[in-house]
Amino acid sequence: MSISTRSFTVNGKTYTPPASPVVVICLDGSADEYLDATMAHDRMPNLKKMTLAGYRGMVRGALPSFTNVNNSSIVTGVTPAVHGICGNFFYDTNRKEEVMMNSSEYLRAETILAAAANAGRKVAVVTAKEKLRDILSHKMTGIAFSAEKANQAQEATHGIGNVETTLNLKTPAIYSADASLFVLRAGVALIEQGLGDFLYLSLTDYMQHTYAPEDEPSLAFYEAIDHELGRLLALGAVIGATADHGMNAKQKADGSPNVLFIETMLTEQFGNGFRVICPITDPYVKHHGALGSYVAVHLPEGVDETAVSDWLQGQPGITEVHNKARAVHLLEQPEDRIGDLIVLSARDVVVGRTPAHHDLSALDSGLRSHGGRYEEMVPLLISHPLTAAYRSKALGDPRNFDVFDFTVNGTHHN
Amino acid sequence: MSISTRSFTVNGKTYTPPASPVVVICLDGSADEYLDATMAHDRMPNLKKMTLAGYRGMVRGALPSFTNVNNSSIVTGVTPAVHGICGNFFYDTNRKEEVMMNSSEYLRAETILAAAANAGRKVAVVTAKEKLRDILSHKMTGIAFSAEKANQAQEATHGIGNVETTLNLKTPAIYSADASLFVLRAGVALIEQGLGDFLYLSLTDYMQHTYAPEDEPSLAFYEAIDHELGRLLALGAVIGATADHGMNAKQKADGSPNVLFIETMLTEQFGNGFRVICPITDPYVKHHGALGSYVAVHLPEGVDETAVSDWLQGQPGITEVHNKARAVHLLEQPEDRIGDLIVLSARDVVVGRTPAHHDLSALDSGLRSHGGRYEEMVPLLISHPLTAAYRSKALGDPRNFDVFDFTVNGTHHN
Repeated sequence: MSISTRSFTVNGKTYTPPASPVVVICLDGSADEYLDATMAHDRMPNLKKMTLAGYRGMVRGALPSFTNVNNSSIVTGVTPAVHGICGNFFYDTNRKEEVMMNSSEYLRAETILAAAANAGRKVAVVTAKEKLRDILSHKMTGIAFSAEKANQAQEATHGIGNVETTLNLKTPAIYSADASLFVLRAGVALIEQGLGDFLYLSLTDYMQHTYAPEDEPSLAFYEAIDHELGRLLALGAVIGATADHGMNAKQKADGSPNVLFIETMLTEQFGNGFRVICPITDPYVKHHGALGSYVAVHLPEGVDETAVSDWLQGQPGITEVHNKARAVHLLEQPEDRIGDLIVLSARDVVVGRTPAHHDLSALDSGLRSHGGRYEEMVPLLISHPLTAAYRSKALGDPRNFDVFDFTVNGTHHN
Repeated sequence: MSISTRSFTVNGKTYTPPASPVVVICLDGSADEYLDATMAHDRMPNLKKMTLAGYRGMVRGALPSFTNVNNSSIVTGVTPAVHGICGNFFYDTNRKEEVMMNSSEYLRAETILAAAANAGRKVAVVTAKEKLRDILSHKMTGIAFSAEKANQAQEATHGIGNVETTLNLKTPAIYSADASLFVLRAGVALIEQGLGDFLYLSLTDYMQHTYAPEDEPSLAFYEAIDHELGRLLALGAVIGATADHGMNAKQKADGSPNVLFIETMLTEQFGNGFRVICPITDPYVKHHGALGSYVAVHLPEGVDETAVSDWLQGQPGITEVHNKARAVHLLEQPEDRIGDLIVLSARDVVVGRTPAHHDLSALDSGLRSHGGRYEEMVPLLISHPLTAAYRSKALGDPRNFDVFDFTVNGTHHN
């Protein structure tokens, strides 16, 4: 059956897909250094081929540099200000409670995936973590399942049943390299079996939280990713890949986590009533202890916002403090979900709430994390040559959430 | 004659050099993408060898991300707050005039180079541009000359005469790839002839201002750099290389420069009397038109600093505005040389003074420049394996101006 090339428009942008399978990949946590290290060992021959034939460059992600935020941006093509997902967690000031944002009820924009399906593409979404599935498959006709719960997928609810036998893949452990490799292997199998021709494959960053770029397990992981890229290329796919965020070590010289507990600090300095939200918090804390480089602060009644902001800005390790207006303008945040102050920390520093809120004993090894400015820049990788217009676009301020645009609209693929 | 391994201490740090030639290189304007692109073409085999045997990672430069600032940091090992050089230019509020800062009279710290010479090393400095020579050779016994004026070097003043015949190299044109390659070739010749065993080689960024990473002239340039790295490795050198700043395209979709003229904007909004200093300004304007992503603003008497700051912060393309206290704390600036407000612009935006202050017709091609936050992160490349302590240090917030420390103190080189 031929592949639909019908144009569709979503969130103000028109996409005209090629007659080839389109595969967009979110290489979760892939700081550029991971690619550099593995490529220096000649262990990513397919990525090398891709970048020589196509494009490799750096793009700016959405802030906070977290997974849900950037996956939401990638599948909608817009900023968090528009799609509304600004973390895994936020404090709902109306309901006066802390709320998980992993549900599509919080998504305020349509997705490219749903629109592609409506335009006749066979859309398939595979994500490592179940938490992302609901947002990514919002209003979408097609296949959507997670590696984490692959063996629970049902035809009626996931567009596919019996995943393990249909795709000949075992459901992996979530804290493993296989959780990500499963996603890519499932993508290959879906194309091979004619079950998908417009794919979004979203990996998980357990490996990057755990290993530095030169560590052998990381090199082997990226080598295995490269193997699947080769299989996708062999199937004639037009591939675009980017990352949701980078990754940096956040530890002191002795290897212990380098944490500023912001709620504790503010309480000591200004008194009670501060509420600090760590939007990285999710049910999967083993690899980062809910510590990232970005928190939101809700101020108690009557406290002087400027005094708090100025004091925070003067603390070593704090790199940015923004009030609501500036966070909306500069960090592209949704005004109603971010609290009073947004605080970002340095390349090697994470910000937390209070010591009691973070179980550091759950960390496997040294702390590596993300969320701030130093994890904002990520790679953009395109398998096919860019058109002149998109080469020019790449010389501006391209974003990681332009990846569908670059892949679908920006390539010479015939 | 044997090479001195006597320790020396400068600016609070002790250096214990190896008995091998030490070569530290500033790859001016080398955003990591330049290395990625050339390595993907297999045209940097020696750098590849170096990074497999030694180290490749990203480090944070000094701000503003300009050449003089970072060269001064590299040779002193300290921030601009300590060494005092915060641009090519500043407004001296006592003398009430705009002053060039290319002279060592403005340098407030001792250099590692002078200290190494005092400890018995044969120190040699080769810089592409003459403007840097005075600062880099401050109080130093040894050889110091520029590619630009190589044929004018004198034994009495430069520690070497007849450079062209002694080193068998022709003085290059300053706006050329050769201006940088000359520096590396001179380094090779100095070691070969026993004239230097502790070298600082500082290139120029004309090529990066002019070409994007994938452009053939840039690939050929980095390939030629790699050839000289190979010659230095063959001579047994311990090599550390970093960059002073990255490089980004600063242009609109139509290829025209993407400029905010800050003095013009402030005058229109708040009236006369503003003075905007572009610290990138120097006698070499052909490649950037004195436009970078960082300016200093001196306010007229009586104007409300907060009002100006808030207004600037709200303008599209402006990413950071800091008052003096914050610029000192956060950007590590010398308090007496920076004016009232520091303004940084986006990845694709430069800030200028007024249209009359910038000759855009002098630009060879599209505008590529630096100076801001998006040119802050640069590569660190070390030829030999890092010790455990320096591998750990690299997992923190290492700086480009730690390059002598990493190279001299941080390597296993026997």
